[in-house]
Amino acid sequence: MSIAVIYGGTRPNGNTETLTEHGIRGLDVERIHLSDFSILPIEDARHAEGGFKDVADDYHSVIDRILQHDTLIFATPVYWYSMSGTMKNFIDRWSHSMRDAKYPDFKQQMAGKKAYVVAVGGDHPYVKALPMIQQFKHIFDFMGMEFAGYVLGEGSRPGDILKDEKALFAAEKLFV
Amino acid sequence: MSIAVIYGGTRPNGNTETLTEHGIRGLDVERIHLSDFSILPIEDARHAEGGFKDVADDYHSVIDRILQHDTLIFATPVYWYSMSGTMKNFIDRWSHSMRDAKYPDFKQQMAGKKAYVVAVGGDHPYVKALPMIQQFKHIFDFMGMEFAGYVLGEGSRPGDILKDEKALFAAEKLFV
Amino acid sequence: MSIAVIYGGTRPNGNTETLTEHGIRGLDVERIHLSDFSILPIEDARHAEGGFKDVADDYHSVIDRILQHDTLIFATPVYWYSMSGTMKNFIDRWSHSMRDAKYPDFKQQMAGKKAYVVAVGGDHPYVKALPMIQQFKHIFDFMGMEFAGYVLGEGSRPGDILKDEKALFAAEKLFV
Amino acid sequence: MSIAVIYGGTRPNGNTETLTEHGIRGLDVERIHLSDFSILPIEDARHAEGGFKDVADDYHSVIDRILQHDTLIFATPVYWYSMSGTMKNFIDRWSHSMRDAKYPDFKQQMAGKKAYVVAVGGDHPYVKALPMIQQFKHIFDFMGMEFAGYVLGEGSRPGDILKDEKALFAAEKLFV
Repeated sequence: MSIAVIYGGTRPNGNTETLTEHGIRGLDVERIHLSDFSILPIEDARHAEGGFKDVADDYHSVIDRILQHDTLIFATPVYWYSMSGTMKNFIDRWSHSMRDAKYPDFKQQMAGKKAYVVAVGGDHPYVKALPMIQQFKHIFDFMGMEFAGYVLGEGSRPGDILKDEKALFAAEKLFV
Repeated sequence: MSIAVIYGGTRPNGNTETLTEHGIRGLDVERIHLSDFSILPIEDARHAEGGFKDVADDYHSVIDRILQHDTLIFATPVYWYSMSGTMKNFIDRWSHSMRDAKYPDFKQQMAGKKAYVVAVGGDHPYVKALPMIQQFKHIFDFMGMEFAGYVLGEGSRPGDILKDEKALFAAEKLFV
Repeated sequence: MSIAVIYGGTRPNGNTETLTEHGIRGLDVERIHLSDFSILPIEDARHAEGGFKDVADDYHSVIDRILQHDTLIFATPVYWYSMSGTMKNFIDRWSHSMRDAKYPDFKQQMAGKKAYVVAVGGDHPYVKALPMIQQFKHIFDFMGMEFAGYVLGEGSRPGDILKDEKALFAAEKLFV
Repeated sequence: MSIAVIYGGTRPNGNTETLTEHGIRGLDVERIHLSDFSILPIEDARHAEGGFKDVADDYHSVIDRILQHDTLIFATPVYWYSMSGTMKNFIDRWSHSMRDAKYPDFKQQMAGKKAYVVAVGGDHPYVKALPMIQQFKHIFDFMGMEFAGYVLGEGSRPGDILKDEKALFAAEKLFV
């Protein structure tokens, strides 16, 4: 098992990161903080003449690292009841990769990977973040990935998540 | 009634735009295409010393225009079973405005506005875009906005939406 | 196309029935009002010695009629944000039929049928009945049925639905 | 804190019961197995002349016991991606109680109670039972009850739930 954690947060040592690190302690994982990279929003050129154009940002270097792992952990704070815009921009760009001659097998390479979601939110995430879980389910289904599990935690201020015992335990058990 | 349409699409004359324009024909609306502007992902500084820092992009000019209207139409293609990253980035930034001394009444100004959603997707949006609708509901509830209605349409290639009679009719009736 | 409407309402000429009849006018359909029949809640005997026992109520006569059609319309008022208990009891009993020697091909016979949902509710059904739609999606997916479409309408008092133009139009277009 | 567990299962010692009992061990609770009682589906008479008629079944005796507690645990197996028909029938009947002169304060008495949900299902409940959680949320919101927490567990054959460590731990922490 080769694991990459894709962090969608924009604050160092946020609650989502704390919860995720709690779950993966002792494991050998590659950490990718999307906010360290410039990843532009997609421009939909599926139907444009010439199709998608190359975009000179960091997206390709990130996706290249991700493709090498068989297990992906999407770790995002709950922003406005779904994943961060930072993470959404990253996923939106997959639409380009699926039509990119440089990635002729993109979907096949993603298919079969195991996917996990870890997310912490401040406003009743156990109920109000469920649409986000359903969105991820549709995303993983589309790509042929296995949705192997998720943990939702509650927290707003730094460190809050350490009080959410249930989330901490669930994170410990998530990747076992 | 003073209406702004906030377009989250990234393709000129996309299906979502066609459907929305069908619904608002004859109405006096201000159109804002988010992809015309540079709106950076939020950096969460709620708990950082000094709080949020000013960001030198176009976000403020966009939000200033929106605040002047009492009815907002969020028109976004369904990308990966939710709103586009472009629109998500825009909404994520509201977290800054709510703590920005330059917008002392941001939440109060947003509260009471009527909100509509128009969205077109290619993969069974009538079922698979429902988590997005639920997400918007949570967003509007949080801000105290009224979720006055939505239309989902089906389409992928340019012009597809013109074949979705049910969506066209629903759009015609949406703002009446 | 051979159509059965399965009515889950418990009030004659309710809003759900009005909306459904509006949609199917001119079509040759078999109408089944579940409330005309005695259909007991399932007793789960999947793991009991001897398995399920025969139940002497009207369930079999109803399911026999349904199996003869290739298109099923599940028409239920929204009670407490989901289908009526009357309709839920009926669907719960499918778990027995799937293990009933008298119905050796039950799941195969159901698979491939087209399924529609028509539902009217009084409390913001366009948003609050969406979990019910998602539930039906899971049900139809499990059975291998095609979820061909749905209409949600708003109404509480008798006749209310006639004011929901959007629902009426959607019902007109649903089975075309 | 005075607790009632409302069991919606129809099989003795089912997985949902095992999980619930694990969570409440050591607590003084009143157990109500709905399947021990005759509770008929509601007949909607909200708009009928004379309104609802008395129904000679066990519903009243059950609701009377429930009203005496301030904490309610709704423990139901996941049948067809939602609560059992047995439990749905019970909740549907609340619509009568809200209009029943014998229960002039029904809604007020329910409001303020804490509500929990415990549910075990066999088909990916962590994702596919989420619409049920959302339905319960709407139900509790309508009644003014606090949705204090839930546990989903996975299991189909008797005893399966004992292998779902995460659910067992979550149940232990649910009522603390």
